[in-house]
Amino acid sequence: MSSIEKGERPVPPTLKDIEEAAVRIKDYAARTPLLESPELNELVGGRLLFKPEVLQRTASFKFRGACNRLLQLSAKQQRAGVVAFSSGNHALATSAVGRILNIPATIIMPSDAPQAKIKGARANGATVILYDRQKDDREAIGAEIANRTGATMVPPYNDPFIIAGQGTVGLEIMEDLEHLGIKADSVLAACSGGGLIAGVATAVRAKCESTQVYAVEPAGFDELARSLASGKRESNAPGAQSICDALQVVTPGDLTFDINQRLLAGSLVVTDEEVRKAMRVAYDKLKLILEPGGAVGLAAVLEGRVETRGRTTVVVLSGGNVDPELYAEIITAQ
Amino acid sequence: MSSIEKGERPVPPTLKDIEEAAVRIKDYAARTPLLESPELNELVGGRLLFKPEVLQRTASFKFRGACNRLLQLSAKQQRAGVVAFSSGNHALATSAVGRILNIPATIIMPSDAPQAKIKGARANGATVILYDRQKDDREAIGAEIANRTGATMVPPYNDPFIIAGQGTVGLEIMEDLEHLGIKADSVLAACSGGGLIAGVATAVRAKCESTQVYAVEPAGFDELARSLASGKRESNAPGAQSICDALQVVTPGDLTFDINQRLLAGSLVVTDEEVRKAMRVAYDKLKLILEPGGAVGLAAVLEGRVETRGRTTVVVLSGGNVDPELYAEIITAQ
Repeated sequence: MSSIEKGERPVPPTLKDIEEAAVRIKDYAARTPLLESPELNELVGGRLLFKPEVLQRTASFKFRGACNRLLQLSAKQQRAGVVAFSSGNHALATSAVGRILNIPATIIMPSDAPQAKIKGARANGATVILYDRQKDDREAIGAEIANRTGATMVPPYNDPFIIAGQGTVGLEIMEDLEHLGIKADSVLAACSGGGLIAGVATAVRAKCESTQVYAVEPAGFDELARSLASGKRESNAPGAQSICDALQVVTPGDLTFDINQRLLAGSLVVTDEEVRKAMRVAYDKLKLILEPGGAVGLAAVLEGRVETRGRTTVVVLSGGNVDPELYAEIITAQ
Repeated sequence: MSSIEKGERPVPPTLKDIEEAAVRIKDYAARTPLLESPELNELVGGRLLFKPEVLQRTASFKFRGACNRLLQLSAKQQRAGVVAFSSGNHALATSAVGRILNIPATIIMPSDAPQAKIKGARANGATVILYDRQKDDREAIGAEIANRTGATMVPPYNDPFIIAGQGTVGLEIMEDLEHLGIKADSVLAACSGGGLIAGVATAVRAKCESTQVYAVEPAGFDELARSLASGKRESNAPGAQSICDALQVVTPGDLTFDINQRLLAGSLVVTDEEVRKAMRVAYDKLKLILEPGGAVGLAAVLEGRVETRGRTTVVVLSGGNVDPELYAEIITAQ
């Protein structure tokens, strides 16, 4: 039995849980490389290493957590199917894993999610239910379906197996750094509900306590930065807007906040304009397609939100699902 | 002394020359990974592995050859500088290597080359001279400068050290396949002057003679396909047009043709429309920015120009330097 299954109340995953997740998802998920751009190194005066989860299946890290979670289901649970609510990438991931493992998936998505994400979930054979981000309660819709059909809810972040799955991003980073014979001063990853950064921080700090791990959030959705400051879970203002469709949570998860409060060096905040610029830099210098939410870490280092001069900084590029019309507008703007 | 320096007349590089090139350029060039997309595998009914040279320094394989060539120069030659004629990627590569090794570079580029490539060469500190692709003789312009200044010409493809450098793409492919414990049925790479495909074919076939190596060319610039058919070096019609700015040579090099005639299984031809579609597929499924010339191999497998069903096919994605306006137009077209 895994250590995260022991108690009644979910407990934070350990490095061992993340290592077990890595073994569990090995045959399904891609092992993404660490990439480096001498030009960007020169620009920031230090060494930047990129973990391109845009090269992961379904083009985001979310595949890891969904895969680790769905592989826990019993045969009976698999037949009853799964329900997920998601702004997009978790939808793509859960539907793709469902398809691979032959598990029916119902996905509840905001009606203003990128078309690429809605279409992708449908292409994976999922039943997609759209809701209004400002008016409807997506968790209530999900719970109703789960109750009615017996399907298992697959939460997007506040779940030990999801966090452990996302934590394999951090584990791979640490393994590759060890292979290169270097230590990172800082590791940055995007934060919405906090599953990715909590998992990454767990793996990174267990392997090297002196490495600082930073969340990065979009302006208007800086709930973690404010929660870390106040010491309790804060909420974002209703009606806040951001180009980062993937990073629009209302409040941190209790489990993820518990981990993040303990392990993070802080949460950095970037504006839409800074995100657009980072997407253009990735187009020019990395030749990787980043969605807005996948570019916040790069934006933070380009804007000097964290010290990079003379240091080694790892940046997770967390997702690449962006509608071509928006992407075209961003790369051609000057 | 390297085997390719022994004779008066340039001789084709061997696997050993390519292995030596790999050691020589190791500290400068990136080792690019092999990437895989389960969705694209499903689409073609076989296994596709991608060698993304868009993740190479200067975003094309050209860095490898230029680096291997410039590292041959004596201290005196280095001081006198280098001259290169190039439609773009060789310009970026030669100017970047020149900058790294502190060698002055003059680059002769067609005036209709993508702005990204012209700007990039200038940003690397090179002197850029523009010429008219239809009227001027770029080789004559280069020779005149070389004669006047004592600079060394760095040819784009018809040179054993350039071919050996590009051949490291093939060497890395074969090393990674061995590590994965699999054999490729086919390897595809773009062809213009033929340096990349000649180097790749040399490495691949020396390591595994049963693997078929195919060049891929754009319609209108299928000089190699026609040369292979006739047995002698054919030329393209003057005034031919293609979206693949990087693949517009007049006639195969004598050295590269000698190699390609001996080692290739054939040369596949793709249209502009097929290239545009491949660029969109790479946007959607691979999250990699491909320039038109970098997408011909993907276009060939998507169009079924080579048998992929039940087979393992490696596709080199050779370059990613495309102006954002053109890229935006292509990804938003339906």
